[in-house]
Amino acid sequence: MKPAIDFYFDFSSPYSYIASEWVGAVAARHGRLVNWRAILLGASFQVTGLRPPAEFPLKRDYLMRDVARSAAFAGVPLRMPEAFPIATQNAARVFWWLHAQEPQRAVDWARAALRAYFTRGVNLSEPQALKALCAEQGLDAQAAEAAWNDPQWKAALKAANEAAIAVGVFGAPYFVIDGEPFWGNDRQAQIEAWLNSGPPRGLE
Amino acid sequence: MKPAIDFYFDFSSPYSYIASEWVGAVAARHGRLVNWRAILLGASFQVTGLRPPAEFPLKRDYLMRDVARSAAFAGVPLRMPEAFPIATQNAARVFWWLHAQEPQRAVDWARAALRAYFTRGVNLSEPQALKALCAEQGLDAQAAEAAWNDPQWKAALKAANEAAIAVGVFGAPYFVIDGEPFWGNDRQAQIEAWLNSGPPRGLE
Repeated sequence: MKPAIDFYFDFSSPYSYIASEWVGAVAARHGRLVNWRAILLGASFQVTGLRPPAEFPLKRDYLMRDVARSAAFAGVPLRMPEAFPIATQNAARVFWWLHAQEPQRAVDWARAALRAYFTRGVNLSEPQALKALCAEQGLDAQAAEAAWNDPQWKAALKAANEAAIAVGVFGAPYFVIDGEPFWGNDRQAQIEAWLNSGPPRGLE
Repeated sequence: MKPAIDFYFDFSSPYSYIASEWVGAVAARHGRLVNWRAILLGASFQVTGLRPPAEFPLKRDYLMRDVARSAAFAGVPLRMPEAFPIATQNAARVFWWLHAQEPQRAVDWARAALRAYFTRGVNLSEPQALKALCAEQGLDAQAAEAAWNDPQWKAALKAANEAAIAVGVFGAPYFVIDGEPFWGNDRQAQIEAWLNSGPPRGLE
């Protein structure tokens, strides 16, 4: 088995959502597994001094259009939520709580939560909405709420953020394949080419 | 004839260089002309509050790798110059000076200057190097130097920057096709799809 693809995502990142819809299938076509890693981009921003692109009006306007267009070109349903961006630490802690039990359950949660937020506007930052989503996904909502308030899963998310920063993750989605970093949903074509035949000719 | 493609570029932008190598051919395949527009990204950054990505160490490291990889995947020769980024107002003023005479001469200059900087490290910010490059390209180097010091061509570049900002240009390369904005060399695939068949299904 070839090395797995590391896939870093933030629950409030629309490009992460689009990528979450294709990364599994692309990896599978090339005999790779995917290590899903929920992070908080805000933690990276604090370290790097970068700021969320949506803070810049001109760039925000463009990005909203580009997100809609990129989703349409990818055939991924998307409706930008009215509340955006939102705090996603609770959704991410649920991810790591499930991950410790069974990684596939965490992946299923990630895909469901990203879809809920970016197609139905389910506000992942609101405890009641998040518990309802947990229940809808067959999870124990009370246990999930206990988990996102538990220092153990707060620490697990913090460790995931720190590990991501150590690798150089400054944006999302962010992929590492065979040690090579790829930033952005728009690197899908390069990722597929890399998985097919490795580095392009002329790249040292 | 279908509407031309507006192509905004900065002489110090490696992604602009890569795009300059394909934009003409892509446009021609779809029966479009290209309006080349030399700008100074710094002017946009001042207005938007954005900062050059290379100012952020983590992002800079990634971008240097991504530039090399993107050039290799595109089959475009590229060697990052030791002096980077550089001031490019003189090269841009030469562009607008030539553009007023004959737009195609300005395009030839843009392609040659981008190639010189990004394959041979010719430092476009140094008057002597810039004059030598002008001479190499069959231009009157003395006249070019007079042009980049002339208030007329300083004003022309300033007007080009202001027009770009009015359109929403906050990065480079930046394309506008049928009123639709595309930012980045990495939007080539979307641009080709758009030129082939217009907006993707589902995009309002």
